[in-house]
Amino acid sequence: MVIIMDTGAAADIIQAVIDKVSELGFTPHPIYGVEKTVVAVIGDKTQEKIEVLRTMPGVERIVPILQPFKLAARDVAPQGTEVDLGRGVTIGGQSLVMMAGPCAIESAEQYVAIGRYVRSAGAKVLRGGIYKPRTSPHDFQGLREDGIPLMRQIKEELDILLISEVLDPRGVELLADVVDIFQIGTRNMQNFSLLTECGRTEKPVVIKRGMCATLDDLLKAAEYVLVEGNNRVILCERGIRTFETQYRNTLDISAVPTLKRMSHLPVMVDPSHSAGRPDIVPALCKAAIAAGADGLLVETHLDPQGALVDGDQALDAPAFERLMRELEPFAHAAGRPL
Amino acid sequence: MVIIMDTGAAADIIQAVIDKVSELGFTPHPIYGVEKTVVAVIGDKTQEKIEVLRTMPGVERIVPILQPFKLAARDVAPQGTEVDLGRGVTIGGQSLVMMAGPCAIESAEQYVAIGRYVRSAGAKVLRGGIYKPRTSPHDFQGLREDGIPLMRQIKEELDILLISEVLDPRGVELLADVVDIFQIGTRNMQNFSLLTECGRTEKPVVIKRGMCATLDDLLKAAEYVLVEGNNRVILCERGIRTFETQYRNTLDISAVPTLKRMSHLPVMVDPSHSAGRPDIVPALCKAAIAAGADGLLVETHLDPQGALVDGDQALDAPAFERLMRELEPFAHAAGRPL
Amino acid sequence: MVIIMDTGAAADIIQAVIDKVSELGFTPHPIYGVEKTVVAVIGDKTQEKIEVLRTMPGVERIVPILQPFKLAARDVAPQGTEVDLGRGVTIGGQSLVMMAGPCAIESAEQYVAIGRYVRSAGAKVLRGGIYKPRTSPHDFQGLREDGIPLMRQIKEELDILLISEVLDPRGVELLADVVDIFQIGTRNMQNFSLLTECGRTEKPVVIKRGMCATLDDLLKAAEYVLVEGNNRVILCERGIRTFETQYRNTLDISAVPTLKRMSHLPVMVDPSHSAGRPDIVPALCKAAIAAGADGLLVETHLDPQGALVDGDQALDAPAFERLMRELEPFAHAAGRPL
Amino acid sequence: MVIIMDTGAAADIIQAVIDKVSELGFTPHPIYGVEKTVVAVIGDKTQEKIEVLRTMPGVERIVPILQPFKLAARDVAPQGTEVDLGRGVTIGGQSLVMMAGPCAIESAEQYVAIGRYVRSAGAKVLRGGIYKPRTSPHDFQGLREDGIPLMRQIKEELDILLISEVLDPRGVELLADVVDIFQIGTRNMQNFSLLTECGRTEKPVVIKRGMCATLDDLLKAAEYVLVEGNNRVILCERGIRTFETQYRNTLDISAVPTLKRMSHLPVMVDPSHSAGRPDIVPALCKAAIAAGADGLLVETHLDPQGALVDGDQALDAPAFERLMRELEPFAHAAGRPL
Repeated sequence: MVIIMDTGAAADIIQAVIDKVSELGFTPHPIYGVEKTVVAVIGDKTQEKIEVLRTMPGVERIVPILQPFKLAARDVAPQGTEVDLGRGVTIGGQSLVMMAGPCAIESAEQYVAIGRYVRSAGAKVLRGGIYKPRTSPHDFQGLREDGIPLMRQIKEELDILLISEVLDPRGVELLADVVDIFQIGTRNMQNFSLLTECGRTEKPVVIKRGMCATLDDLLKAAEYVLVEGNNRVILCERGIRTFETQYRNTLDISAVPTLKRMSHLPVMVDPSHSAGRPDIVPALCKAAIAAGADGLLVETHLDPQGALVDGDQALDAPAFERLMRELEPFAHAAGRPL
Repeated sequence: MVIIMDTGAAADIIQAVIDKVSELGFTPHPIYGVEKTVVAVIGDKTQEKIEVLRTMPGVERIVPILQPFKLAARDVAPQGTEVDLGRGVTIGGQSLVMMAGPCAIESAEQYVAIGRYVRSAGAKVLRGGIYKPRTSPHDFQGLREDGIPLMRQIKEELDILLISEVLDPRGVELLADVVDIFQIGTRNMQNFSLLTECGRTEKPVVIKRGMCATLDDLLKAAEYVLVEGNNRVILCERGIRTFETQYRNTLDISAVPTLKRMSHLPVMVDPSHSAGRPDIVPALCKAAIAAGADGLLVETHLDPQGALVDGDQALDAPAFERLMRELEPFAHAAGRPL
Repeated sequence: MVIIMDTGAAADIIQAVIDKVSELGFTPHPIYGVEKTVVAVIGDKTQEKIEVLRTMPGVERIVPILQPFKLAARDVAPQGTEVDLGRGVTIGGQSLVMMAGPCAIESAEQYVAIGRYVRSAGAKVLRGGIYKPRTSPHDFQGLREDGIPLMRQIKEELDILLISEVLDPRGVELLADVVDIFQIGTRNMQNFSLLTECGRTEKPVVIKRGMCATLDDLLKAAEYVLVEGNNRVILCERGIRTFETQYRNTLDISAVPTLKRMSHLPVMVDPSHSAGRPDIVPALCKAAIAAGADGLLVETHLDPQGALVDGDQALDAPAFERLMRELEPFAHAAGRPL
Repeated sequence: MVIIMDTGAAADIIQAVIDKVSELGFTPHPIYGVEKTVVAVIGDKTQEKIEVLRTMPGVERIVPILQPFKLAARDVAPQGTEVDLGRGVTIGGQSLVMMAGPCAIESAEQYVAIGRYVRSAGAKVLRGGIYKPRTSPHDFQGLREDGIPLMRQIKEELDILLISEVLDPRGVELLADVVDIFQIGTRNMQNFSLLTECGRTEKPVVIKRGMCATLDDLLKAAEYVLVEGNNRVILCERGIRTFETQYRNTLDISAVPTLKRMSHLPVMVDPSHSAGRPDIVPALCKAAIAAGADGLLVETHLDPQGALVDGDQALDAPAFERLMRELEPFAHAAGRPL
């Protein structure tokens, strides 16, 4: 860390900070300037002492130097990590992975029908939640446990991978039994108990960025899973909250190349929840591929108008099939088979 | 709801929307204008059908009319709700309630010492967490279960109310045994399993606004507790995320009078987490009282420089005592005993 | 507009609003519900009366129906507008337009050298400012009037179009003499005197979105130019301010397809100012093309490390040439020659 | 500045940076750590070289140490600056200054009538614009030059100070002839030509914070006036843009104590434009006084429902008079006569 002292801080004030650094077990490197003095402190364990030093008299501010995430950092695997999703599908390598499906599973017929067209259009993973974190308790909350047998049935029938949101640490074990990939939703990005439970399984975990989280926060959330020994973490950009009201959230496309530089983990994009309207979803999918995303998570529904959850952002079957065809040339331009 | 049709929408397109409204069981009220047609739909159950209608051809947008929260709305108790915290202390009535203490409980000695000066300075509630939701898993996570006996001891010794953060639905029962007030942290405002568990107890619950949550979101989170039958909910503004970097978060002071208009629930302010620096905390406390807050949640620590968590925003003992004296004239101006 | 009355508003309160609407010359359409009453008012001139009605007793809120911009709206030219930039170059049609160059013109040699490689790499327009709006008055402010002869010389020499920022309404006439395209910077998006002056010329005007402006605001700013009779307006997305600190601003890629739906004007993207760092600029360029942008505005400099302004985001010559080659397949995928 | 090198940067890469620092005329202070090396560079002129160094290979990031504003910094006048507004009124000293009036001057009768009750209620300064920066060109733009004789007449009649917004550098001279205080609106905070023109007069200048500007940006805007020799600058917080939609903007109350720490200039608050609704204005006024504001700028109108501009946020005469009485105890609590 670098401790920046107040302009004109007195010699004894500066000395007290230097002494404190020594007392904490580090070697202080003071640099005295005409207007300003700074004290550099280099070392592995300095981060946790920043707060101690920050309130000392004469300290203007402290600049941390090491990243606060270690296991998720690019340095750990400079060539990038390819996560095995099962059934021969991986993400983070050459191929692009399309995950698609309804927001919530509503019935067996609906789910099978969607699964069929999704799969035949080329998606490798079927999404669909049985637990839905709804902003209001008066809204439909998902099929809950009743959805489990349905999921099992569909998986056999369609020979497809399933991704589903987990909401509660008590639900991890139950869901692990049937889904192939856990999804941590935007509202749970900092639900550390839930992250820890997922870290104790061997399932891949897609962590959606909190709608107000920095990239640093997202990587630190990933760290909660990684630290438990589960290395199958996939980061997902899904839009952040800004003042713009034309779309539900603002897709942060710069996050894609930046996360790839900061971390070795695969990066996905969810354009549907970001947009909250289907008309701009194809443009956002193309942009995500062009920016270097490793996968997409797209909402599609047989009958968006009749959907119980988030129908207003889902593509219907023909629109989804058209999307898959339209993405083809962009995947090709990016040199990545879809 | 009011359905606004596209400019120049054709007659049959408009008719289809009108028919759909009838089919859903409501009475449509079309109003045909020169450039625009709108269809008004009035009723109690219309909200849940908005998504169905939103994607119909020719629909430009839909404006909901009823509030999406019912139990938290001001209409329910226009005179406001006074929540009983125990030991004769209430919040939401005439008196202002000061809650203060360290971010995390570190040891019995520290906690008792802080509890003593906090209480003698006039605070009615002692804060202190044993579970700490840290952004990084590498940071100190609290004493966890080891802190329970400590809390019990302090409560007897100081005859004070305790508020403490609950992180995990599995921890609610355990914590309910010793704390007087649950705190839901900003990162858990939309942890619906946790809110539901708290709703099943009879303990007062302070819900901190998510750092990126709208006031609507906060009230809908409160609804999750209220709907379970627990009416002892207190709202807490603690700063939102903006582009400003001089302070950790931007305290949204307008939330105080606005929440009081939207809801019957008491409203508190946490200036310490918002600021992330102690020097502006007194100014923010005064502003909160002047804006009509029912209570304050302030961080104080015997030795901020030595604190394991968030020491950089805590007031030390003399600063806390000075703060209590400085708030006196503002509480008086607001006509509310502190 | 639709006037939404308070829940339980009394009959005389509602009648007063209805009477006021009639008095203002419109026909009120009240719709009485069990809990809520709304009053719909349809017409061309209703917008300007919203404020009058908004403060009447019993009015909960008012929802405007018509768009507040008229000349920029997509309805005006549903097929889109192709703007003639001069020398046979147009934007908004089939071809993608690359504009590139240094942030500020520093000397004749620098400018000619950059112009040469920019042009030979395929850019049709050379950027370069002689007036620089610097956040601090202590920073380099551009060559100012001394740059005019330089611009004239380069234009002849390279047979290229020039785009340059205009800062002051008093400078419009002078600059119009030499530049081909005016650029309105992000800080001046709502400098209405400046927009009006540009509207009185016949030069194309690129309006950069304010870093905190909504798309509505941007279109209303465009309206200031259009209303004066100058139809050559090009919209430019350049990033908005959010809480993320890894990049200077957050490129709002959703703005591209959304502006194309809202307006008939061409839409460009400036990834360089948004990013504030060169490493992610190529990814953002590709994403912009994929999302449907009509042009790009990219910063490039012979010697970024020696640049007087914004060198830290400029691509050097080899990086710019590589970028142009890398964009080729994405332009092809979008079906638009670069 | 402190240059932070990449983790594991090679020795020759680090040496190149050190050499560059020397070449630029500064003394480098490298500090070699196990994982990280940093190079500290202390001096007065280092800021302008940051961009040069930022793009060198191996540089992770650079942390500036000196503030980018000099004349506005607190250090310049640690005791604070009291600005003389004329007619014996000052701001920044012990007294609180209330400025109030309509957003736009509409007629002589309206303006005199408002001026009368505003003055008798205790305000020292009458606001009222003749140029209105409206987001849309289709809205009322103010009386413009026709308003000048009106202003002159009112000033004589009421013996009051006038504050009015200046929009265009060409209008500064004209307006300087009649107004006592210039107001720079939020949309013009970075209109540097306008700031410079105001700096060339001797009139006090109230600079409103841009709705998306950091405190740093605001102080750098103030610097543009100060650098021209006009020291009569007053900073004004008026709300920033966030995702919250209950109010037009989010009043950043933390800006008040923080600006007082960063700068020696007086700090005002405009709660009316921030809120965009009159009901919460009194609470925000009280909060502003409690937080340490030196003055308030409040919108009031004889007939808010009939106002041509921003009527929906103005207090009517009785509400304004009640406000002044309600602020009394808070001004007293702050030890500052109103």
